[in-house]
Amino acid sequence: MVYSIVPPQLFSVEDYEKSSVKHMDHTAWSYLVGGSADEITADKNKCAFDEIQLQTQVLRDFAGANTRLNLLGSTLPFPILLAPVAWHKLFHPDGELATVQAASAIGAGMVVSTQSSVLLEDVAENATKPLWFQLYIQPDRMFTAELVKRAEQAGYKALVLTIDAPISGVRNREQRVNFHLPQGISSVNLAGMKRPAVHNASLLESPLFSGQLESIPTWQDIEWLKSITSLPIIVKGITSVADVEQAITLGVNGLIVSNHGGRVLDTLPSTIELLPGIAEQVAGRVPILLDSGIRRGTDILKALALGASAVMIGRPYIYALSVAGAVGVVHLLNILRAELEAAMVLTGCRTLYEIDRSLLWKS
Amino acid sequence: MVYSIVPPQLFSVEDYEKSSVKHMDHTAWSYLVGGSADEITADKNKCAFDEIQLQTQVLRDFAGANTRLNLLGSTLPFPILLAPVAWHKLFHPDGELATVQAASAIGAGMVVSTQSSVLLEDVAENATKPLWFQLYIQPDRMFTAELVKRAEQAGYKALVLTIDAPISGVRNREQRVNFHLPQGISSVNLAGMKRPAVHNASLLESPLFSGQLESIPTWQDIEWLKSITSLPIIVKGITSVADVEQAITLGVNGLIVSNHGGRVLDTLPSTIELLPGIAEQVAGRVPILLDSGIRRGTDILKALALGASAVMIGRPYIYALSVAGAVGVVHLLNILRAELEAAMVLTGCRTLYEIDRSLLWKS
Amino acid sequence: MVYSIVPPQLFSVEDYEKSSVKHMDHTAWSYLVGGSADEITADKNKCAFDEIQLQTQVLRDFAGANTRLNLLGSTLPFPILLAPVAWHKLFHPDGELATVQAASAIGAGMVVSTQSSVLLEDVAENATKPLWFQLYIQPDRMFTAELVKRAEQAGYKALVLTIDAPISGVRNREQRVNFHLPQGISSVNLAGMKRPAVHNASLLESPLFSGQLESIPTWQDIEWLKSITSLPIIVKGITSVADVEQAITLGVNGLIVSNHGGRVLDTLPSTIELLPGIAEQVAGRVPILLDSGIRRGTDILKALALGASAVMIGRPYIYALSVAGAVGVVHLLNILRAELEAAMVLTGCRTLYEIDRSLLWKS
Amino acid sequence: MVYSIVPPQLFSVEDYEKSSVKHMDHTAWSYLVGGSADEITADKNKCAFDEIQLQTQVLRDFAGANTRLNLLGSTLPFPILLAPVAWHKLFHPDGELATVQAASAIGAGMVVSTQSSVLLEDVAENATKPLWFQLYIQPDRMFTAELVKRAEQAGYKALVLTIDAPISGVRNREQRVNFHLPQGISSVNLAGMKRPAVHNASLLESPLFSGQLESIPTWQDIEWLKSITSLPIIVKGITSVADVEQAITLGVNGLIVSNHGGRVLDTLPSTIELLPGIAEQVAGRVPILLDSGIRRGTDILKALALGASAVMIGRPYIYALSVAGAVGVVHLLNILRAELEAAMVLTGCRTLYEIDRSLLWKS
Repeated sequence: MVYSIVPPQLFSVEDYEKSSVKHMDHTAWSYLVGGSADEITADKNKCAFDEIQLQTQVLRDFAGANTRLNLLGSTLPFPILLAPVAWHKLFHPDGELATVQAASAIGAGMVVSTQSSVLLEDVAENATKPLWFQLYIQPDRMFTAELVKRAEQAGYKALVLTIDAPISGVRNREQRVNFHLPQGISSVNLAGMKRPAVHNASLLESPLFSGQLESIPTWQDIEWLKSITSLPIIVKGITSVADVEQAITLGVNGLIVSNHGGRVLDTLPSTIELLPGIAEQVAGRVPILLDSGIRRGTDILKALALGASAVMIGRPYIYALSVAGAVGVVHLLNILRAELEAAMVLTGCRTLYEIDRSLLWKS
Repeated sequence: MVYSIVPPQLFSVEDYEKSSVKHMDHTAWSYLVGGSADEITADKNKCAFDEIQLQTQVLRDFAGANTRLNLLGSTLPFPILLAPVAWHKLFHPDGELATVQAASAIGAGMVVSTQSSVLLEDVAENATKPLWFQLYIQPDRMFTAELVKRAEQAGYKALVLTIDAPISGVRNREQRVNFHLPQGISSVNLAGMKRPAVHNASLLESPLFSGQLESIPTWQDIEWLKSITSLPIIVKGITSVADVEQAITLGVNGLIVSNHGGRVLDTLPSTIELLPGIAEQVAGRVPILLDSGIRRGTDILKALALGASAVMIGRPYIYALSVAGAVGVVHLLNILRAELEAAMVLTGCRTLYEIDRSLLWKS
Repeated sequence: MVYSIVPPQLFSVEDYEKSSVKHMDHTAWSYLVGGSADEITADKNKCAFDEIQLQTQVLRDFAGANTRLNLLGSTLPFPILLAPVAWHKLFHPDGELATVQAASAIGAGMVVSTQSSVLLEDVAENATKPLWFQLYIQPDRMFTAELVKRAEQAGYKALVLTIDAPISGVRNREQRVNFHLPQGISSVNLAGMKRPAVHNASLLESPLFSGQLESIPTWQDIEWLKSITSLPIIVKGITSVADVEQAITLGVNGLIVSNHGGRVLDTLPSTIELLPGIAEQVAGRVPILLDSGIRRGTDILKALALGASAVMIGRPYIYALSVAGAVGVVHLLNILRAELEAAMVLTGCRTLYEIDRSLLWKS
Repeated sequence: MVYSIVPPQLFSVEDYEKSSVKHMDHTAWSYLVGGSADEITADKNKCAFDEIQLQTQVLRDFAGANTRLNLLGSTLPFPILLAPVAWHKLFHPDGELATVQAASAIGAGMVVSTQSSVLLEDVAENATKPLWFQLYIQPDRMFTAELVKRAEQAGYKALVLTIDAPISGVRNREQRVNFHLPQGISSVNLAGMKRPAVHNASLLESPLFSGQLESIPTWQDIEWLKSITSLPIIVKGITSVADVEQAITLGVNGLIVSNHGGRVLDTLPSTIELLPGIAEQVAGRVPILLDSGIRRGTDILKALALGASAVMIGRPYIYALSVAGAVGVVHLLNILRAELEAAMVLTGCRTLYEIDRSLLWKS
């Protein structure tokens, strides 16, 4: 990877976002940036970080400073993972192969989507670092079990079970541009899977409640999943503390505080607002990750200060992927990594383990 | 009704609103969208919903899920009623006949306005579902009594007594476009009614207090109305808890929390802000409905969580009526219905009766 | 006065404001609408009213409803007075003569400015209703005493002593357009008055503190003023409760809560924010008026609900004066009067004395 | 200095800011106005003053009014100092020589930057008033010691030790315009200093933590600095109360509440928000100054009311320097000085020592 060919005029996630408009098809761009309904939650995810104020600690010693962390048995050089995003080929011809090349080069954790546009096995083959696999439990449970087995065999180290999108959100922005997958891009991992018959509800029937919810996952599926795999299970998308407790009771190995980037249910709180309550409930029993809205190193610092062990980014690395492929993803990760380190120096934190609520200014 | 001719590029109430500009005369559009004075309440009705945050409940079972409710003895398939709006012919040549066709097709409750542009009897004749009649008590009480009798004879199942507009609001937007009813459209139900003589106040007299308020309705009219009809009476437009108590003491059968879409007195609170205090005062003694500001399925969920049994929509269905007649109204209702069901799935509510304040996130 | 020639397309204070741009010289317009420094207080005066929420009271009886009030021994038909504004000839060739014609026609109280562009005697001569005289205590106290005597002799019924502008504010908007009085317009009441010599401060001297503050009024001037006149003294421009107490101790007859329309010290609170604290301190000992920011009948209702006996308007009537002379001023007063009455009907208030804090909605 | 050639159309700091765009190279302008990252703190520094509300005190006597203060043994005619800003030659060909001419003419305190574009000795030679020297502790401590000795020998009266910028902030605005020093402008005071070798971090290394932090200053450097100089040491850039205590324990002579104009760590609180907590901790043991965001005389009044003895301005005087050289700086200082005096008159303060929290309005 020739790192020097990185775009010379891009210095922040926002710069990549603006540039990406020119590197994507408009419908793909609308699919990527859009949120649910009025995009209130999608916007709030970002603004909510801006409203949290830091305070400096000055004149500290930084000998031995680092951003290393241990997460579910692995050591990561920095606390930024690539969140699962469907169909990377929509954004770059090499798709997930470019992404995994970048993640391996810089040592970032990566979560491959069930809906990847490259076979999960091919992604794994190109990785030099451990990967996690994101799982949607499919209506066809037999197929789901096989998918889990394939992930295990391909060497994935954990399952990220997304549970906040049993149905698609109200995706008006996508609908308005008539988004659909172009020829040649598909959820290749799901090829051959049986899908439930489409039921066209009549005017006198419920649009959603007339049959199509029969096979959506329930808490029992977590137990079932644990019975068919020995991989750690990280549950993604819990926002209420009651659900946190149930998940931990069922033995999950980690939680991701997420609102799916504001793409499923609008007017959910931002994830950084949700984090403190969830962290209090978890009380250290399992590690917590957070995604949705991370755009700056200071955002990462704030998430860690409020209880997360690490964060995941989604749209930001896809912007970079579209602009400059693997090189762009590495560059973007380095931007965030440098911003995080700058924020740590200025708030006096030598390691991630020194980051806590005392950094947050209370008026 | 050929449902497939529904406009293909409209996916939300907002889409219909934007499209309606092209389907209405500008003065009719100004009449419809306008609010009182500076339209602060009209705007706030919508924004206030956006500021209420939900929280998800995940992995629930949805067997038997539905949106049915019982309301004043009738069963409705979903909790969205069509609010009374004057003169539908301003917005579509078929006027209320198109609206009632849509309501009957999809099974929505509909409240026909005293100021309908089609005779209340003709609307009723085209309905296959029960209707309610909205009543303004007229200066001519004899005529009012006759109107009530006509509504009874035409088969209306309840009276919705609007009590928040004894005088017209400060409707600057209407005034600026010189709104008036075009030839051929009128309040046909009121034909032949005696109207009080217009009093032109001199400079030294009160503009409003010089005579024209003599015949405005008072609490005694509720007693009188009960004495002349056996229909249930639902009072629309109460915003203070003292008035709630008086209305219940007088034996009304339901309340509609409304600020008339922000069209009468500006700087009233939004209805969703008013609802909790009123619901607390009512304490389940009569059912509560809410209108003014509903634009999303999540808005409906929030209204039900805060104490409403159902909601009414006004401007939204008129937008749809103007764009695509009865087909548009059905489509718009289906959009909201699908959005409500999506919100119920994502917050873990199998029926309307599981919707409560626990769905609202408190920071 | 031919009232029917009132501009047909103007329905609110805002409409007059917008129209006035075309009827004034740009420098006069800048002088009128501008506030001090960044105009934060000038803007807030208006917005703060919008944030106060009302609640309705329905189905009340309005027999005998009126807006009359007694104020310092006079009866006024409605609680809106014309505030002192300098140099009306800047805005209409007839200047204060047109204004007083309008005030007399409709029965509004009017306060004539020390800096009127028509002699105070000529204004009084054209009045059929009692007037008040606004006084700035001049560096030349002899001249000031004579001014008071002239006001008494011309029949003015009270003195409004403005005490919040001992120096000019930071009027950047005026400076940027190089505002100055055109030929033929001047403070005619002050003709012949001795003015202190201008002191041009050197770089090493204080710009303001080097001499020019010697003759600014102090609390002792109130005692002096009381010794030379038997007219009631109403103090205009107090914002702190300590000063309220001192003024009452010295025997003033009324207070006007004002921040001079945001024209003197920027970042003062809006007057409607100041009112409750001041009303609490006054505790009914003297009547309170309020100006700065009144643009709607609901604003008047809110001021009365929070403790004012009446309000004064300044810029609004000047907009109307510029657009349509005396007729415009009458029309504008009638607009506000009708809006106030509408607000009273909708909040269930039959007289001004029924307006209290219970009309304000508390979340 | 011919004061009359001051630009005739500039009446406020904002006017100078707007005008300066035309008098600077775009990259220099971007360097000057820019803040860190999303410039949230840079913007908030200004807005936060606007949200603090004053209250007037009227009818006070102003005999003997003045704005004098004693600060670290010197008497200043007014409480506004010129903050250290790098490379004045970027903004005016005479650079710091023009600035010091203005400061001496009007008697303002001035802090000369380590990174001045004119030798610290040459600046001192042109001063007729005492100067302070701003110090960055350099990686080369020997050179730093020599710099301190030079400042002492040139007659500087205090050291302002900046401790909030051990690393450069995330300066995206500068990066986007590719800011760099033009030929002929440099940090002349640092000529000949040894600089640490640049370490180009590999992809697997921390961008910042890989070596370049070895020589950043720590608390021990304060002790060292005190051991090599007898000048008073004023620490600039503390935002947390724990650091305040440590600084005072180590014997510093003053504190400057600063966030470096929002140029280092974004989402820090505004300095006026930080001030009260820091003032409470300091409890009068050392004087406090404040910079970042001062644009109006009322801002100065508010800073003094909340515990500062004086304020410093940075960008504002550079705007004026670029527009009109030394004359502009004098003019700008006089604008702020006159605004401060006006605010003192209107809030009833005869001297700086009468300014306290009672001037701030509490809702």
